[in-house]
Amino acid sequence: MTSLSSMGEFGFLEKLKARFGNMDPALPMGMGDDAAVLPSGDKENYALFSSDMLLEGTHFDISYTPMESLGYKAVSVNVSDMIAMNGRGKYIVVGLGMSARYGWEDVKSLYEGMERACKEYDISLVGGDTVSHSKGLLLSLAIWGEVPKASVTYRKGAKPHDVLCVTGSLGASYVGLQLLIREKRTVLSDPTLSPEIAEYAPMIQQHLFPQARQDILNFLESQNIVPHAMIDISDGLSSEILHLCSASGCGVEVYEDRLPIKESTYRTALEIGLEPLTCAMNGGEDYQLLMALPPQIYETATSCGDIHAIGYFVENPSHISLKTKAEQEISLTAQGWTQF
Amino acid sequence: MTSLSSMGEFGFLEKLKARFGNMDPALPMGMGDDAAVLPSGDKENYALFSSDMLLEGTHFDISYTPMESLGYKAVSVNVSDMIAMNGRGKYIVVGLGMSARYGWEDVKSLYEGMERACKEYDISLVGGDTVSHSKGLLLSLAIWGEVPKASVTYRKGAKPHDVLCVTGSLGASYVGLQLLIREKRTVLSDPTLSPEIAEYAPMIQQHLFPQARQDILNFLESQNIVPHAMIDISDGLSSEILHLCSASGCGVEVYEDRLPIKESTYRTALEIGLEPLTCAMNGGEDYQLLMALPPQIYETATSCGDIHAIGYFVENPSHISLKTKAEQEISLTAQGWTQF
Repeated sequence: MTSLSSMGEFGFLEKLKARFGNMDPALPMGMGDDAAVLPSGDKENYALFSSDMLLEGTHFDISYTPMESLGYKAVSVNVSDMIAMNGRGKYIVVGLGMSARYGWEDVKSLYEGMERACKEYDISLVGGDTVSHSKGLLLSLAIWGEVPKASVTYRKGAKPHDVLCVTGSLGASYVGLQLLIREKRTVLSDPTLSPEIAEYAPMIQQHLFPQARQDILNFLESQNIVPHAMIDISDGLSSEILHLCSASGCGVEVYEDRLPIKESTYRTALEIGLEPLTCAMNGGEDYQLLMALPPQIYETATSCGDIHAIGYFVENPSHISLKTKAEQEISLTAQGWTQF
Repeated sequence: MTSLSSMGEFGFLEKLKARFGNMDPALPMGMGDDAAVLPSGDKENYALFSSDMLLEGTHFDISYTPMESLGYKAVSVNVSDMIAMNGRGKYIVVGLGMSARYGWEDVKSLYEGMERACKEYDISLVGGDTVSHSKGLLLSLAIWGEVPKASVTYRKGAKPHDVLCVTGSLGASYVGLQLLIREKRTVLSDPTLSPEIAEYAPMIQQHLFPQARQDILNFLESQNIVPHAMIDISDGLSSEILHLCSASGCGVEVYEDRLPIKESTYRTALEIGLEPLTCAMNGGEDYQLLMALPPQIYETATSCGDIHAIGYFVENPSHISLKTKAEQEISLTAQGWTQF
């Protein structure tokens, strides 16, 4: 038996895509991007289709994850896949599995979180499937959306000399997660202690209630900017950079001193014994957008104030490196699953 | 806390639908049918969207469920939801969660099962999400399809005097499942015994590789027959009859002597100590279609040879009963979840 751990996440996904990713070669995009891109009855638009799961134990620990946050996050994660294609989600269906230890109040909070997110993104939750699950909570959402044919954006398409840009800031979600884990340990070790998490609220908020960057989509649209390539940051900046480079067939040079890390994230990371650069590069769950912009329009793009140039693409596909503040060159490598 | 078990499946789903089922009142159908019915860019057609999960422990036991069967069945179950709306599936996305004890060969067999089913139903598997799951295997599929606006069929719409018809035969899947469970026990109690299941192959096949009735859809279309109401039989004939009656606001009278139960199913049920009528009424997972046909066209419909009249709808919504061969009247009641 070929174990999945021996293949690694990327090896596994490559093999899956090679064997089963081409069932209908006429599709604009099947497997291999943030969402499938499909013909629709609409001449102006493609349809977008994707799904994302959140599993107890793998993706969250219910002891520090409010049900409302779980619902909100599940919608954001799925919407983010639509935005990464430069499109908008329209409809969501929800698969919910849970055990008897949950009650109606839990389900209600979970759905309230989904409802709140759906309103923010102008999406309708239209159905799904609820089943009993003996082994914890699982949430599986699928999303359908659309994108104008003229502006669909793939992982492929970045060109040498394009500017690599990222939205928002990096690492806050990961630091927020570490704070929650630390507080859980503290509370468990001494139940009379009240968790002191107020000063860390923005990072915890970023972890529990991440927002998909629909505002950036609106801005790009208002400026008629179509990136050459785009992806959302779910696993971490490093591995998303590798995805863009691999799909586009080029390399990249990234500059540490250009990475947008908030002062509070930086300080808190150090305070709890984490390397801020590692949090930014490999932390994951930031749900920011990473894009390739042609040099002549990147200044217009960065004028919105929340799109940051962090490097540029180069011709050599094996040159994928980070230049540190100390002028060192570090080759970027993928993280992927650690669970298997 | 209001426990889910105290609410029951139908109470829970009613409450969920009442609170969250109406996010967009402009939709033809959100929650509450086999699939959501949605406007699409296409003037002739509505879009259909739904999802269904298969969880280890709840829906299958991996010790007697081949991976290929699991993949095949997951696709059939989802396609069946499209057919129940009188529509066709077009695209599927797959959420797969599994632990390290599975290998590439398992994933390959699973996908081969999905691929085989997709080919049979003319559907494309276009993407999804694979995650590690510490606690067994789970498969969550979402399906997108379409239905001509003129022929979309809901659970609601049955009228008094309509004929209640069912396709194929009933109970075989449940008897097949019991055979698999029995064989597992036999094998576990004495590993040297070889399972003798060849004579039971059709029932086991029906359980492991159920076929969605796309052939019936084709037949109805060829005859220009649009049922007044339709649902697929996933939970069992009894509860699906209750769904049709409740959505349509009428009652029904069903005749035991009209229920299509195969001779082999009947005989095997008795042989292993099961009541054939119970297998047919409550067994579930038959994935046959249950429909309301106006009296003037039901004869054309039944001419295909595999659509069987089993009763008729009546005005009184509280008269939902089965007339047995012994001329007794039995009120039908829902089963629903037993797991909570």
